[in-house]
Amino acid sequence: MTALEKPVTRTAYQQSVADYWNAEKDPVNLRLGDVDGLYHHHYGLGDYDPAVLETPADRRDEAIIAEMHRLETAQADVLLDHLGPIKPEDRLLDAGCGRGGTSVMAHLRFGCQVDGISISEQQVGFANAHVRQRGIDGSVRYHLKNMLDTGFGSGTFQGIWNNESTMYVDLNELFAEHARQLKPGGRYVTITGCYNDVTGGRSRAVSQIDQHYICNIHARGDYFKAMAANGFVPINVVDLTAATIPYWELREKSSVATGVEKPFLTAYREGSFHYLLIAADRV
Amino acid sequence: MTALEKPVTRTAYQQSVADYWNAEKDPVNLRLGDVDGLYHHHYGLGDYDPAVLETPADRRDEAIIAEMHRLETAQADVLLDHLGPIKPEDRLLDAGCGRGGTSVMAHLRFGCQVDGISISEQQVGFANAHVRQRGIDGSVRYHLKNMLDTGFGSGTFQGIWNNESTMYVDLNELFAEHARQLKPGGRYVTITGCYNDVTGGRSRAVSQIDQHYICNIHARGDYFKAMAANGFVPINVVDLTAATIPYWELREKSSVATGVEKPFLTAYREGSFHYLLIAADRV
Amino acid sequence: MTALEKPVTRTAYQQSVADYWNAEKDPVNLRLGDVDGLYHHHYGLGDYDPAVLETPADRRDEAIIAEMHRLETAQADVLLDHLGPIKPEDRLLDAGCGRGGTSVMAHLRFGCQVDGISISEQQVGFANAHVRQRGIDGSVRYHLKNMLDTGFGSGTFQGIWNNESTMYVDLNELFAEHARQLKPGGRYVTITGCYNDVTGGRSRAVSQIDQHYICNIHARGDYFKAMAANGFVPINVVDLTAATIPYWELREKSSVATGVEKPFLTAYREGSFHYLLIAADRV
Amino acid sequence: MTALEKPVTRTAYQQSVADYWNAEKDPVNLRLGDVDGLYHHHYGLGDYDPAVLETPADRRDEAIIAEMHRLETAQADVLLDHLGPIKPEDRLLDAGCGRGGTSVMAHLRFGCQVDGISISEQQVGFANAHVRQRGIDGSVRYHLKNMLDTGFGSGTFQGIWNNESTMYVDLNELFAEHARQLKPGGRYVTITGCYNDVTGGRSRAVSQIDQHYICNIHARGDYFKAMAANGFVPINVVDLTAATIPYWELREKSSVATGVEKPFLTAYREGSFHYLLIAADRV
Amino acid sequence: MTALEKPVTRTAYQQSVADYWNAEKDPVNLRLGDVDGLYHHHYGLGDYDPAVLETPADRRDEAIIAEMHRLETAQADVLLDHLGPIKPEDRLLDAGCGRGGTSVMAHLRFGCQVDGISISEQQVGFANAHVRQRGIDGSVRYHLKNMLDTGFGSGTFQGIWNNESTMYVDLNELFAEHARQLKPGGRYVTITGCYNDVTGGRSRAVSQIDQHYICNIHARGDYFKAMAANGFVPINVVDLTAATIPYWELREKSSVATGVEKPFLTAYREGSFHYLLIAADRV
Amino acid sequence: MTALEKPVTRTAYQQSVADYWNAEKDPVNLRLGDVDGLYHHHYGLGDYDPAVLETPADRRDEAIIAEMHRLETAQADVLLDHLGPIKPEDRLLDAGCGRGGTSVMAHLRFGCQVDGISISEQQVGFANAHVRQRGIDGSVRYHLKNMLDTGFGSGTFQGIWNNESTMYVDLNELFAEHARQLKPGGRYVTITGCYNDVTGGRSRAVSQIDQHYICNIHARGDYFKAMAANGFVPINVVDLTAATIPYWELREKSSVATGVEKPFLTAYREGSFHYLLIAADRV
Repeated sequence: MTALEKPVTRTAYQQSVADYWNAEKDPVNLRLGDVDGLYHHHYGLGDYDPAVLETPADRRDEAIIAEMHRLETAQADVLLDHLGPIKPEDRLLDAGCGRGGTSVMAHLRFGCQVDGISISEQQVGFANAHVRQRGIDGSVRYHLKNMLDTGFGSGTFQGIWNNESTMYVDLNELFAEHARQLKPGGRYVTITGCYNDVTGGRSRAVSQIDQHYICNIHARGDYFKAMAANGFVPINVVDLTAATIPYWELREKSSVATGVEKPFLTAYREGSFHYLLIAADRV
Repeated sequence: MTALEKPVTRTAYQQSVADYWNAEKDPVNLRLGDVDGLYHHHYGLGDYDPAVLETPADRRDEAIIAEMHRLETAQADVLLDHLGPIKPEDRLLDAGCGRGGTSVMAHLRFGCQVDGISISEQQVGFANAHVRQRGIDGSVRYHLKNMLDTGFGSGTFQGIWNNESTMYVDLNELFAEHARQLKPGGRYVTITGCYNDVTGGRSRAVSQIDQHYICNIHARGDYFKAMAANGFVPINVVDLTAATIPYWELREKSSVATGVEKPFLTAYREGSFHYLLIAADRV
Repeated sequence: MTALEKPVTRTAYQQSVADYWNAEKDPVNLRLGDVDGLYHHHYGLGDYDPAVLETPADRRDEAIIAEMHRLETAQADVLLDHLGPIKPEDRLLDAGCGRGGTSVMAHLRFGCQVDGISISEQQVGFANAHVRQRGIDGSVRYHLKNMLDTGFGSGTFQGIWNNESTMYVDLNELFAEHARQLKPGGRYVTITGCYNDVTGGRSRAVSQIDQHYICNIHARGDYFKAMAANGFVPINVVDLTAATIPYWELREKSSVATGVEKPFLTAYREGSFHYLLIAADRV
Repeated sequence: MTALEKPVTRTAYQQSVADYWNAEKDPVNLRLGDVDGLYHHHYGLGDYDPAVLETPADRRDEAIIAEMHRLETAQADVLLDHLGPIKPEDRLLDAGCGRGGTSVMAHLRFGCQVDGISISEQQVGFANAHVRQRGIDGSVRYHLKNMLDTGFGSGTFQGIWNNESTMYVDLNELFAEHARQLKPGGRYVTITGCYNDVTGGRSRAVSQIDQHYICNIHARGDYFKAMAANGFVPINVVDLTAATIPYWELREKSSVATGVEKPFLTAYREGSFHYLLIAADRV
Repeated sequence: MTALEKPVTRTAYQQSVADYWNAEKDPVNLRLGDVDGLYHHHYGLGDYDPAVLETPADRRDEAIIAEMHRLETAQADVLLDHLGPIKPEDRLLDAGCGRGGTSVMAHLRFGCQVDGISISEQQVGFANAHVRQRGIDGSVRYHLKNMLDTGFGSGTFQGIWNNESTMYVDLNELFAEHARQLKPGGRYVTITGCYNDVTGGRSRAVSQIDQHYICNIHARGDYFKAMAANGFVPINVVDLTAATIPYWELREKSSVATGVEKPFLTAYREGSFHYLLIAADRV
Repeated sequence: MTALEKPVTRTAYQQSVADYWNAEKDPVNLRLGDVDGLYHHHYGLGDYDPAVLETPADRRDEAIIAEMHRLETAQADVLLDHLGPIKPEDRLLDAGCGRGGTSVMAHLRFGCQVDGISISEQQVGFANAHVRQRGIDGSVRYHLKNMLDTGFGSGTFQGIWNNESTMYVDLNELFAEHARQLKPGGRYVTITGCYNDVTGGRSRAVSQIDQHYICNIHARGDYFKAMAANGFVPINVVDLTAATIPYWELREKSSVATGVEKPFLTAYREGSFHYLLIAADRV
């Protein structure tokens, strides 16, 4: 078996995640992406414009979707704000890239090469088709790769991020691989939902999210332990919980709600769950 | 505030677990316990007698329930088999005792004093009332206590067990407390459901169980890491998965099914979940 | 020897720090504190008003000192902003309180009891005299205590902070003691200068600061390692470096400059040193 | 020096072990192996047939030897029972293969390729000659290799076992190497004598065994610590002590007793020593 | 059971060691001690005077014994040389004191109080009788105590030593207890035989020593790992192997040889065993 | 960029150290080296001859310099004494070789190949020119290399030393690299100044040394922790503090004093700093 044939998923669990995303055609992802071609697989930040709820019925749905998309794009912008100075000759990694939205935004902002990776063949194909259309496929490339074992060379990237994709993997394995492929002094950023080890174990609402996405939400403390063990030192940590709640309130009222809105809102409001940004340097 | 007033639950999570069990009146626990006064809060082991399914309709339900109860009692017997030689002057701890069934069985078998603890006031009250009725309340006592901080003296117990109650607590905190209150050379036994870190992260079925019981199922490997870190050395480990499946198949057909049967059967059959007994010595 | 006689300093190093602060009468601390009775032993945050530099010569010195004091008070306010909700019945600990300014501000803001500790008898005496004058000595108390072994009861405090005082102690010992005396779920905040392990070892400028204050500046990464090892989980981390540089630029031009301004500015500007706020929960 | 010339033994200790086994021609190993060509270097399991002791004098010796050989083969069967499902296309590693008996049995049972390794040139030569005779040298191969540094590729084996050969090596180095060369999800099995850290340090009887074989018997707890540190998670642990005692009692009465029988029986009976099987998954 | 009744030995292993020393009446210990009343349980250092071997037959035995005793006393002097400055008001602990010789020498040298501890009632009784005879029982006291749990107050001693007694205990437990009962900045010294982890595992000669004394010789590296983990920092380490060999060569020729001389000489000469002094500070 | 072009310094800190040494032309190094062509970058050991201070004025300076050089050469000899038996076919590494003196002495003593490494191009060039002059450039070679990542093959060296060069690097990274490039059983020796964690944190005098050399003096305890974590086991540790003080006293009186003499003497005398030799085996 050649290296190329080495399977991307290594466990039954990983395969179930790949299957989920290969099959997924959720309007909440597709219809929002259709707005401007930035397909996101993450949530939004900031207050929504309450006027969209008052839009006349025939355009109300479209207005809400555009507004939700605006908040998701704002979230990706906040993430990119924390990457530090990136030069056009640098290279970035979008680990768990979904259909590719954040990668495109990074390229447009910094002018540099971006690699996105996903274990979903469907997502990778979709994203590559999209950047070909945009004519930026020379700079933005999507790969069918396991983020725990990417095969990229050591010291390749100046910046790496996980935009809501760390809950599918073991954090120690993840940060070991990121430490390997980042340059010394490179920057790592993640935005993630994490449960609050201050209030105790995973609440029912958190387990409901886990079962919806077949994911494994980590404790907030697990991030800092795994970073400390793998040579990552935080430089900024921001609790975004309050800033993401409006997005969920709007989504609950939208036509593309999937049912997972209620556990998210419960978990955020009861304090058992945080929406956290962590920016850290690799030392 | 006196020591007595120190609250038993220390986190919002623990309080939600206490609330669950204070309110719980599941027939699958109460009706089975009514059979012979041994109220269990755990599952069963061994093949069921297929004849119960053929019982005439008017007595079928009762027959199934008696059979399920027989399998649950068999499970508790397997657990007690692994405690090693216990003398009448020894003292045992049932950590997470529920309505007290295993404690009673231990006293009847070994003749020694047994302490059961629970964070549910309702369970403790029920269990104490029951042993008063049996006239063994001089030997078996139930306490409203947090198993992570029991207040029992150091080196008090010759044996401690958790019968399906470790999924509510942090294993390192649990085994540190157990190490403290066990005598040197004392024996610890647990029967527990754990997810299979070989197949990867928590499967959807495992998260469904978590959300049903507001529990936090641990990886199999977490038990051995926490034991190694806290002075516990395994002497017997038994994979009981195959032996518990019949119980769930029977329960699924019973009148007292709660809906959690399907995730259990899925998880066991797909290999993402094990039913495991671990017996370990405190060194 | 009774417990009361137990010496506060345990090592020759600690004694040299105590001696330094017992003898210290730096105008940069005393004259600024005279402005409004809040005596700070930390630096400032925010832009200064450039008009103060244009003040007529006879009042220029006074104007600069008042402005520097304003920035130092602003720094203490930023620290207190991160303590989370504090109720009047809560109790707070100011570890390394100097002449007591932040303790007073915390009491005025939250209305609760505050304990400040220092190993300098001179500072403790000064601070207690001051709160007696203010008539708040029933609520704010300063103690001659070693922050690595305070003697306060376990679980006493809802919040603890170190305002630029962690560079005198071993972080693992410090956070172990803080973890002990904080309530579960309590909040810890520090503002500190730390060297940047991304640029490598301690630069010459950092060692110059160390020798000036006989302190031991830690690497940024050491904070997160020690927190992870002692049950502290960050919730907010803010890089305040850019916001503190103006204070130093003003101080360099003031009459109370001590000579340490140059190494601070060099270190901040070359990137070998950060001014960092960390807010963390005790889990 | 080419890789081929790299010496197999790396320390004076390893060389003394190799010398021992190169010189060894113990009838207890050779005469038992002659029975059916399965040469074992381990002990037996199960009750012996007391009739062999009553066999007429001229055939008694032969009968006892055949019975001991039966018990040793039964032991290897128990070990192989715990390897999990093995397919003909899988590959297995017999680490510390001696004269090769267990490797042959594994091939006969599973039909797959088996590699046996030993640091004794004499054992490797003997074993290879034997499989050539049997005509299975295409499938079963013995190598002169150090089990701490085999040179086999990473992820090569579906199953690995140590049949009484772990007492010659450092467990952390051993399990690190096994973790490397096992496939993810592969199975590891060992049967080993280990001293009981519950009764305390190594008893005199245990040291007598050590000096007899120039081996270094480990504490039971050391196995679980080293496994936890190297990604192995137990799935079955069986205390075989009671089941191996009859073998030693028979051996003590046989013509091939070597004198080490007494310390073994003393150690097992006083509880300072266990005969343990551990089956674990590589996660 | 009162605290006084708490048994000194906690494991079967410890009891076997206590039994050994309670029964021991080896001339090599008793006859040498009779020379001047300093009863040692350790070996000697330095060259012997070859003239003793030429002594006329009727006084030769006595001369050899006196010379061996001189070398053993020299060893204890070397140990005491490394305790650092000890004042008359300090207190010292002789952990594993045997019949008490080193404790007496320490008192005579420093004029301070010395506590010796042993798990052998016979040794403690012998040693206390001896100091009563010398009239120094007000300053030198022997106690029946387990060195892993002495019951002495925290921070009691300025110096602690183990003169060839560490091979009976777990080093991590030992150094944790020593760290507790030493004052900060206190000094610890041990002279011990340790096997050489550079040559690999325990050689046959080392296991022969273990079985002779029912002891558990540690690897050299284990000392430094356990010290690093328990707050001890070496300040002097001396390889005494070459200096102790003459003692063993003389002893081999003496009338009080016990048979263990040959393994000692073999082990030292082949390099598998070291005679090591470690002096370390408690930080 | 080819491997050759890979920069030697990896951080801003390392670059500042390289810049310092590239620019350095301190007479205390150059004039002493001129005496006999052995250029040292370390301090001396042993008593100086007080007669040199009485030398007539015109030759006094020269006499003092020759005496200081004698003491520095004596120091290097002490270091080489601890390398154990080195054969002509062995290979040695001088990590942080400065202008190369100790490397030359090692070659002259053992007749073997020596590699010296430095991150200062100026030092490497100087040292290579010198050995070409001596005609030993076939055996002694200096390289521009980072001691944390030398590029030498694994298991290359029989001996490695750091002669006062460990204070520029992270000890864990250093010993990991040394462990890699040493042969199993190889010997490591360092002579270094370290601060005394017994007296507490870094004293002012220690920070003054740090700022003078832009170095990062480690605690004594850090050496032993990092060795324990990286497979190094001490065999000899010698406190050389008392033996180096005379050198500093003489240097203070010499014409080549640089001003750093006072902090060194203060630190050694107050006990906050040690001059330590550690010899350790790689296991």
